[in-house]
Amino acid sequence: MERVQQIIEAIEKPDPSVGNRAQEHLDNLTKPLGSLGRLEELARELCVMRGTTELSQPQPAVTVFAADHGAALAGVSAYPREVTAQMVLNFLAGGAGINVLARQVEAVVRVVDVGVDHEFEDLPGLVKAKVAPGTADMTQGPAMTRQQVVEAMLVGARQAQELTDQGRDLLIPGEMGIGNTTASSAIAAVFTGQPPEKVTGRGTGIDDEGFERKVAYLKKALELHKPDPADPLGVLAAVGGLEIAAICGYCLMAASRRVPVVLDGLISTAGGMVAARLAPEAVGYFFAGHASVEQGQRLMLADMGLTPILDLGLRLGEGTGAALAVNILRAAVAIYNEMATFESAGVTGH
Amino acid sequence: MERVQQIIEAIEKPDPSVGNRAQEHLDNLTKPLGSLGRLEELARELCVMRGTTELSQPQPAVTVFAADHGAALAGVSAYPREVTAQMVLNFLAGGAGINVLARQVEAVVRVVDVGVDHEFEDLPGLVKAKVAPGTADMTQGPAMTRQQVVEAMLVGARQAQELTDQGRDLLIPGEMGIGNTTASSAIAAVFTGQPPEKVTGRGTGIDDEGFERKVAYLKKALELHKPDPADPLGVLAAVGGLEIAAICGYCLMAASRRVPVVLDGLISTAGGMVAARLAPEAVGYFFAGHASVEQGQRLMLADMGLTPILDLGLRLGEGTGAALAVNILRAAVAIYNEMATFESAGVTGH
Repeated sequence: MERVQQIIEAIEKPDPSVGNRAQEHLDNLTKPLGSLGRLEELARELCVMRGTTELSQPQPAVTVFAADHGAALAGVSAYPREVTAQMVLNFLAGGAGINVLARQVEAVVRVVDVGVDHEFEDLPGLVKAKVAPGTADMTQGPAMTRQQVVEAMLVGARQAQELTDQGRDLLIPGEMGIGNTTASSAIAAVFTGQPPEKVTGRGTGIDDEGFERKVAYLKKALELHKPDPADPLGVLAAVGGLEIAAICGYCLMAASRRVPVVLDGLISTAGGMVAARLAPEAVGYFFAGHASVEQGQRLMLADMGLTPILDLGLRLGEGTGAALAVNILRAAVAIYNEMATFESAGVTGH
Repeated sequence: MERVQQIIEAIEKPDPSVGNRAQEHLDNLTKPLGSLGRLEELARELCVMRGTTELSQPQPAVTVFAADHGAALAGVSAYPREVTAQMVLNFLAGGAGINVLARQVEAVVRVVDVGVDHEFEDLPGLVKAKVAPGTADMTQGPAMTRQQVVEAMLVGARQAQELTDQGRDLLIPGEMGIGNTTASSAIAAVFTGQPPEKVTGRGTGIDDEGFERKVAYLKKALELHKPDPADPLGVLAAVGGLEIAAICGYCLMAASRRVPVVLDGLISTAGGMVAARLAPEAVGYFFAGHASVEQGQRLMLADMGLTPILDLGLRLGEGTGAALAVNILRAAVAIYNEMATFESAGVTGH
C-alpha cells in the first residue's frame, strides 16, 4: 500500500493556463472561432495534460488486463468462464476486435494475465502476472483480499510505467473477463449511489431472466458487504475484480507521469472511477473514449465530469471504444499542428 | 434537365438482402452478437450500398464546391464576402481544416469554383466551372435561374463521375461560400416545414442581433417566393446556392453509380436533401457524417432518416465532419475484414 500511496502522491493537478495559450493558437487558425468544437477542446486538453503548447501525435498503447470472476461461476454471464482464456489467445493471435482497432491507430497491444483461471505457457505478447486464478463469489464473501487488490494495482502500475518508459504517451486500459460487467456494475452502484438495476446492463447479451438474476446477485453482494465509497480499496476487495484493480493502478501511474488515459467501456471506466476516488486529480488526465450501451458506465463518466468522445452503441469492451476514439484525438492534434493561420493564408480574420 | 433526369433514373434501390448476409458474417466474429453496435451497422450498410458482401477499404475523395451568395451582400454573415475566394486559395495550399482531416483518411481534395465572385488564375487542384459569379439577393428575386441550377448540378455530377472513374468510391461533398448557411437554412425550412427560426443557426458566429437579421431575411425570402417543396429545382432556384446545386448533382451521380456519399454539415446536407427529394432512392447511398451545431442540419438528417455517425459540436463545414467520420467507416471495414471467427480462433460461441 505504501507504493500505491507514493504513486497517488506523485499525481499533480494540471495547469489550466496552458489551455488558454493553446486556445489562442487555435483561434488564429483559418476557421470561425470555436467552429471545430470538440476537436479544439481535445487539443486544448491534451496540451493541459502534457503541460505544453507543443503537441506531437500520440503514440498509443492498449493493455488488455484479463481475469476471471466468481460471478461467472454463479451463472450471471452469457458466456462460459473458459472464454476468458480463449480470448486471451485470440488477442495474442491478433484476431480480436481490439487488435483490429488498435492497428488502425498504430497502438501496440499487450495482454496481461492478472487473474485468469488457466495456466498459460510462455507466449509472445503475454505478460504473466497472475495474482490469483480469479476472484471469489462476492455473494459469499469478499471477491479478493486487500493484499490482492494492492498486488493487482501494482501489476497495472508496472505496465503503465514500462509503456511510458518506452515512449508510449497515450494509454488505453482494456480488459477481458467473463463476469466482469457484474463486478463493474457493483462498483458503479457504490460510487454513484444508484441502485443495482440502474447501473446494470445486459453485459454480453443476457435475456430478461438473466438480467433479473444479475440484479439479484448484485443486491445480495451489496447487502452483504455494504461497501463504503470512502474506502475505494475496500470496495475493490469486496465486489471488484483483479483486472479492475490493475486498471486502477494503470490509470494512477499514467496520471502520475502526466500521460493521458483514454477510458473505454464499463469495466475500464470502473477502474478509472476507483482511481478517481483514490486520487481526484487523476481525472485531469482522463478522456472518455465513448459512451457505452451499459448505463453504469455513463453514470460513472458523468460522476467524473467526463464527456464521451464517441457514442456508437458499443458494448464489447477490450478497449475497443477507446481505441476508436484515438482517431479523433489524432485529428485534433493534426488540426492543431497543420492548419494555416489567418495571417499565413492571407485570409481576412475575425 | 434531360441529363439530370437520366442520372435520376439510373439510381437503383439497393438490395437489403445483401445486408442480411453481411450480418451473418459479422455474427460469426469473436464478439457478443451486435456488441460493435454502429460499426456493425456501417459495415452492413456499405455492403448493401455496394451490393456485395466483399468490402474493401474506401478510397475517399472530398470535393469542395465554392460559390458566393447574394445574402452575404445583404449583411447576414459574420465574415466579408472576399473570404470565399481567399479560402479557395487556402484549400489549394493545403492549409484549411478539410485539407488536414482529408489527409488523415487519405482522401484527395478537389476544389471547384462553381460560382465565386473572383476570377482565379489556372491553379493546380482548382476546377474552374463557374456558372455565375454568385447568386442574387433572394429577398429581391430568385437566387438563380432554373438554367443556372441545372448547369451547377451538372458541374457537380461531372465531378462525381470523374472521381468514380478514377476509382474513388466514397464521396464527400464539401463547400465554401460566405452566406451559404442562410441559403441552406432556407432549404431546410422549405423541406422540413419548420419556420426559419427553428432551422437557423449562428453560421460562422453571428450575435443575437445578427441572428434576428438572418431570420428576418429568411422570412422575407420565403414570403416572396413561397417555394414549393414538390418542385426541388424551383426551391434551389429561389433560395439556393450554386454550390448547393452542385452538391445535389454530385450526390445524385454518386448514387447512380452505387457510390456511397458521406454528408457533412448544414450546406452539404441541404444539397443531399434536394437530391433526396428529386430521387428518394438516393438516400440509400447516404451516410450522415456528423450532427452539426446548426439545428437545420439535424432536422434535415432526421427527415431523411439518417443518424449521424459523430456528434462533436462542429460547425465549420468544408466537408470536415464527414472526413472525420471516414475514420469510423474505415474501422467498420477493418472489423468486417480482419476479425477472427469463433471457429478460427477456437472460442466457445453463442
